Amino acid sequence: MKKTIFTLFLASFFAFVSQAQQINNGVMNLNEFSRPNKRSNIVIPDVNGFKVLKCDFHMHTVFSDGDVWPTVRVQEAWREGLDAIAITDHMEYTPKKDDITPNNNRPYEIAKPSAQRQGITLVKGTEVTRQTPPGHFNALFIGDTDDYLTVNTNETDREAVMKAEAQNAFIFWNHPGWQPGIAGSYEWLPFIEDLYKNKALDGIEVVNGTGFHMKALDWCIDKNLTVMGSTDVHNLISLSYDNSRDYVHRTMTLVLVRDNTPESVREALDARRTVAWASKYLMGKEENVRSLFNACVEVLPSHHSETNREGKTIKYYQIRNNSDLYFEMERTAGNGPGRIVLYPQSSQVIAAESGQPVYSVVTTYVRSDKHLSVNLLLP
Amino acid sequence: MKKTIFTLFLASFFAFVSQAQQINNGVMNLNEFSRPNKRSNIVIPDVNGFKVLKCDFHMHTVFSDGDVWPTVRVQEAWREGLDAIAITDHMEYTPKKDDITPNNNRPYEIAKPSAQRQGITLVKGTEVTRQTPPGHFNALFIGDTDDYLTVNTNETDREAVMKAEAQNAFIFWNHPGWQPGIAGSYEWLPFIEDLYKNKALDGIEVVNGTGFHMKALDWCIDKNLTVMGSTDVHNLISLSYDNSRDYVHRTMTLVLVRDNTPESVREALDARRTVAWASKYLMGKEENVRSLFNACVEVLPSHHSETNREGKTIKYYQIRNNSDLYFEMERTAGNGPGRIVLYPQSSQVIAAESGQPVYSVVTTYVRSDKHLSVNLLLP
Amino acid sequence: MKKTIFTLFLASFFAFVSQAQQINNGVMNLNEFSRPNKRSNIVIPDVNGFKVLKCDFHMHTVFSDGDVWPTVRVQEAWREGLDAIAITDHMEYTPKKDDITPNNNRPYEIAKPSAQRQGITLVKGTEVTRQTPPGHFNALFIGDTDDYLTVNTNETDREAVMKAEAQNAFIFWNHPGWQPGIAGSYEWLPFIEDLYKNKALDGIEVVNGTGFHMKALDWCIDKNLTVMGSTDVHNLISLSYDNSRDYVHRTMTLVLVRDNTPESVREALDARRTVAWASKYLMGKEENVRSLFNACVEVLPSHHSETNREGKTIKYYQIRNNSDLYFEMERTAGNGPGRIVLYPQSSQVIAAESGQPVYSVVTTYVRSDKHLSVNLLLP
Amino acid sequence: MKKTIFTLFLASFFAFVSQAQQINNGVMNLNEFSRPNKRSNIVIPDVNGFKVLKCDFHMHTVFSDGDVWPTVRVQEAWREGLDAIAITDHMEYTPKKDDITPNNNRPYEIAKPSAQRQGITLVKGTEVTRQTPPGHFNALFIGDTDDYLTVNTNETDREAVMKAEAQNAFIFWNHPGWQPGIAGSYEWLPFIEDLYKNKALDGIEVVNGTGFHMKALDWCIDKNLTVMGSTDVHNLISLSYDNSRDYVHRTMTLVLVRDNTPESVREALDARRTVAWASKYLMGKEENVRSLFNACVEVLPSHHSETNREGKTIKYYQIRNNSDLYFEMERTAGNGPGRIVLYPQSSQVIAAESGQPVYSVVTTYVRSDKHLSVNLLLP
Repeated sequence: MKKTIFTLFLASFFAFVSQAQQINNGVMNLNEFSRPNKRSNIVIPDVNGFKVLKCDFHMHTVFSDGDVWPTVRVQEAWREGLDAIAITDHMEYTPKKDDITPNNNRPYEIAKPSAQRQGITLVKGTEVTRQTPPGHFNALFIGDTDDYLTVNTNETDREAVMKAEAQNAFIFWNHPGWQPGIAGSYEWLPFIEDLYKNKALDGIEVVNGTGFHMKALDWCIDKNLTVMGSTDVHNLISLSYDNSRDYVHRTMTLVLVRDNTPESVREALDARRTVAWASKYLMGKEENVRSLFNACVEVLPSHHSETNREGKTIKYYQIRNNSDLYFEMERTAGNGPGRIVLYPQSSQVIAAESGQPVYSVVTTYVRSDKHLSVNLLLP
Repeated sequence: MKKTIFTLFLASFFAFVSQAQQINNGVMNLNEFSRPNKRSNIVIPDVNGFKVLKCDFHMHTVFSDGDVWPTVRVQEAWREGLDAIAITDHMEYTPKKDDITPNNNRPYEIAKPSAQRQGITLVKGTEVTRQTPPGHFNALFIGDTDDYLTVNTNETDREAVMKAEAQNAFIFWNHPGWQPGIAGSYEWLPFIEDLYKNKALDGIEVVNGTGFHMKALDWCIDKNLTVMGSTDVHNLISLSYDNSRDYVHRTMTLVLVRDNTPESVREALDARRTVAWASKYLMGKEENVRSLFNACVEVLPSHHSETNREGKTIKYYQIRNNSDLYFEMERTAGNGPGRIVLYPQSSQVIAAESGQPVYSVVTTYVRSDKHLSVNLLLP
Repeated sequence: MKKTIFTLFLASFFAFVSQAQQINNGVMNLNEFSRPNKRSNIVIPDVNGFKVLKCDFHMHTVFSDGDVWPTVRVQEAWREGLDAIAITDHMEYTPKKDDITPNNNRPYEIAKPSAQRQGITLVKGTEVTRQTPPGHFNALFIGDTDDYLTVNTNETDREAVMKAEAQNAFIFWNHPGWQPGIAGSYEWLPFIEDLYKNKALDGIEVVNGTGFHMKALDWCIDKNLTVMGSTDVHNLISLSYDNSRDYVHRTMTLVLVRDNTPESVREALDARRTVAWASKYLMGKEENVRSLFNACVEVLPSHHSETNREGKTIKYYQIRNNSDLYFEMERTAGNGPGRIVLYPQSSQVIAAESGQPVYSVVTTYVRSDKHLSVNLLLP
Repeated sequence: MKKTIFTLFLASFFAFVSQAQQINNGVMNLNEFSRPNKRSNIVIPDVNGFKVLKCDFHMHTVFSDGDVWPTVRVQEAWREGLDAIAITDHMEYTPKKDDITPNNNRPYEIAKPSAQRQGITLVKGTEVTRQTPPGHFNALFIGDTDDYLTVNTNETDREAVMKAEAQNAFIFWNHPGWQPGIAGSYEWLPFIEDLYKNKALDGIEVVNGTGFHMKALDWCIDKNLTVMGSTDVHNLISLSYDNSRDYVHRTMTLVLVRDNTPESVREALDARRTVAWASKYLMGKEENVRSLFNACVEVLPSHHSETNREGKTIKYYQIRNNSDLYFEMERTAGNGPGRIVLYPQSSQVIAAESGQPVYSVVTTYVRSDKHLSVNLLLP
């Protein structure tokens, strides 16, 4: 008897938990079937005291040849765990101008309130869109673009870029190599050299969407330019990346910052503390890629040992990847398994003699023809 | 020796299969990580000789208060397996007008070429957006909307709707009940009765996104109006529906047509041959829901029998759901398991005496307070 | 007032729908988080009037060196949509014999009741496990195995196989090539030739798990043997196949049968009407693979045409894959897109001149060095 | 010219990266379609200096009424990120004894080498299986069970449990309430009281699989017993839990330990530092649940503020869940959103006046009728 009362009491108490579909005033709410509105954390531990911001500084909207309203870019970025973005609509290319008044200040102005509320750093930017060669350039941290609107294809390429430089912009060369059929499109032309010498070129977009421009990585390494990775998204992010696989995120630039502020982002870009991240792959200066690897991958003390058939002591080690990055390693020297795959937020157990085998992290590129090489300390 | 040659030959022959990442002219292509560009079939068998078209006749773009360019609506629809759609931007509500020139013909014109190429039937539509009550009305199969642009909030509600009716539009009342706090917003007001009597009201949006307007279903049944289900999407479909569960698709209207043509769609809408589909749920006239259920669910002949403890013969039957729909059934009479869940494209095995138990298909609504009741023939 | 009553009534009426967690007698049931217990349909249309059964005739349990009780194999098969299976524990290899009494009849006896209830055809089988070469042989449709238990490694290989043949078994050679380092392990040795000539060899396991034994396919084609694909699963299926990708199922043999009966399965195996299916790939006799392709892939009539820059008429066609199989095609002659990927249950739209381009279906193998070539009729 | 050579070089260099399917000696390897062999990290930050171990101390194998070989339990646990497990086969119930020699030491002996290699703490255990009431008891950290084998159903329940207690086992009462129809099955009977008073009862299984035994939680709180959550898995974990949803893991006990050692596990169990975790839900002593919540959930400093219509300052805060746990919160006092859902490893942005609203974390239970209540500090 007492039990029945108890049960009824509970049933009432938990009523708010138990309703999958609620009916209010004759409307049944089926929103348990809505996609959760949440920001997914991208987990990457701090690297040498720097926070690792997730950034995408190349995106389009309906104000040039993109397909979405500027606020969508903030919303996508927030959901996908990005920290800082720039909308970089083309100045010279506005195919929707019959319906939409061209104005390169508007994407920033429209997106700004959403970005502020969602805690996304919105960097003002634009894409200076010249014929290829020399191609396209993104300018970040720009000022008012009213003046830019006078830019047209009759203006010289140099003048176009220099309008951004005059505003102390951070300028990077977009996707060199994207039109391989055109002579000079993937060469370090005098025009580029001129920008570079005049400090008007700060970085290169080494990865654009799913294209890894390998020579551009070498240029960044050899000339100390910032390695950038970005989506150049025109359509929806959700239609572009196959995130059914856990190692697939939108292409981005990992920026190693002192703080999550616009000023820190700029400082880190200027200091070349970036790594491009595209699906399985990381591209960047060797020291940055190495620091990132070391921050993410951990060898735990051996928990067990055995004597193998040849009388040697084999120890078992757990290798743990504490990040959402992906590392695939192939042994190039010493003893140990030939191949180790560290999926995001996962671990592997390996059996090996204690020692310090050398592994090539084949999903990293520190030059076009060189992977990061790491010593795996097995104590 | 011979084997080596053979192997090398094969390695060469299959080179094109085996390259996950291709390098061309110094650009490595990582597009194995792109989301596949494909149209997912939504599988629903024909129903009594009618094809079942998947339709969404309520969507917005940047031309009113939506967030995407009209072509995105076609692209989403194509990917998600829809057959027919309408973009129905608000006539009277254009919050982006500082940047975008209001023009209710443009969404259709812009989307049309994509729709033609992708094989999507694009029905021209608009949303007549009045104060609530009476609320909003969608007009489909409309003509030029230049005249509509003179519509403003000073105009009477009746005149506004009648501009569409004059073009022989198919008109349905959107989401009655969406603003429950407002007196008269979820009532069959004289204004509605007037439209209805004058054949200017053809249907009601019984499901809007994740809201099931239950009284509206009863009105459709009692007054022989077309049951509509639609997304009313403003943002991205991919951000709205949690399709990680296989029974979740965007909300839509299943239309039972003679052919996949605009004329057949109109004929079927006029003939009330529709069922609204929202996640697990189906809402519609009993005969339509029943026909749909019968077309999808199949009881295979028993493949095995046993004698149970009480000496009775228990047979094993396979119940097969040949569709992407979801059916959850609870027994109300006869023998058999108390509950049967038929997930999309799957089967269940049940053990029962032969007979004809009665099940209530609790994920269907043929009235606000009535599920479809089916006899499950177990021979 | 009336509304309140109405609402309460509904709230009560739908109570059974709305409870995600039910509390009964002080126990809260959280089983909404259980994996649904369902059989997933694998959809493949009938092929030339034959049903396509999904079969796996090579599996292990704790009765030899497998890790699960025999009923688990039925359960996995039922869930994954298989129609017919055989448990084929090793006769000569029983590493768990300290705990489990060896008996090759037991796996079948134990699994049989589950199979009958679930509607799975359970074929009695065993694996005759000889040194390599010649290797291992699966015998299906065998009788009592008591006699087999006298088999030991001292017995000649021929005697061992012939015990199965004496029971009129269907015998296939397992995974030739699995131990490439051993001389003769991947050759058509006299021993094999002897079995073949004496009709004691009916087929070869062309695909074993994730290994495609390419020479074995050629032997099947040249000598008219049955092409088999199987898992040889020892551990759990769920740990072996990455079914997060929709084209990944466990490896299996598609058997084209007259009816879903054991006799029909045997008839089809004897008549060589099989295709091995492993992830993206199909391997088999050209006529079987072609029939399968034709049954699954459909070109719908063109729905739209345009005149291109060169004044040619380009039509738009929808290519539809009505199956859960995967087809990747590369054009080898005629006009049309260079590559078409038909994901499971999906469609593509292509733009092409009308004609009949030739495509190589590169995810099929009709010999080790030959894909199926199809003419794509574009009317 | 130079470019061509460069390209060829790269193509060769990256050959090992680019081969999705490798052909060796006539065998094509399709193992890109294998499920990755990895241990998934379950991320939960340290709690007050304690590590949070993920444990399941109730599992079965073929040695009683389970369906898998003992090593499978280690493999499942390793993959799913568990740290410590116990196999607890029934002593008195061995339905497979016709094929498998009953021996309660064997599951531990067989699983031990795998556990050592994989770094899983394997606690020796057994299930003392008496009629209900009193029901079943799990004994952990036991010694040799040879003596236990003399146990039979004729022996008194007390003697059976005391054999374990004599080995200084950690003993918990399993799933009270699992057979609600039986009188006394869900009551604190004199038999239980006797064990309790004699220190032979250390904990209760508050969650068994998907059943939350609510009264058992109150008993644990009131009598200071250890709260346990476990799977009691007999079949495969992969068939039991719907891990397509990111908040669904197998049911487990979170144990707050000083170190990842068997001794620390025992110490923590004895000290009652546990929380049961079942899908969305956490059950435990208030102090443990509160510490866990505080370790996982973080309010970041406000990044933006606005003045609302009423002239009040509204700040925007990011609430971040740094764990794989799930928290659903409903406001009970103060200002702020009515409901906040913190999905695993994700964040929410909320807009609120600064203050300290009170939230009930409705997915936690600190008693059968009480959720954890937290003050959310919004500075």
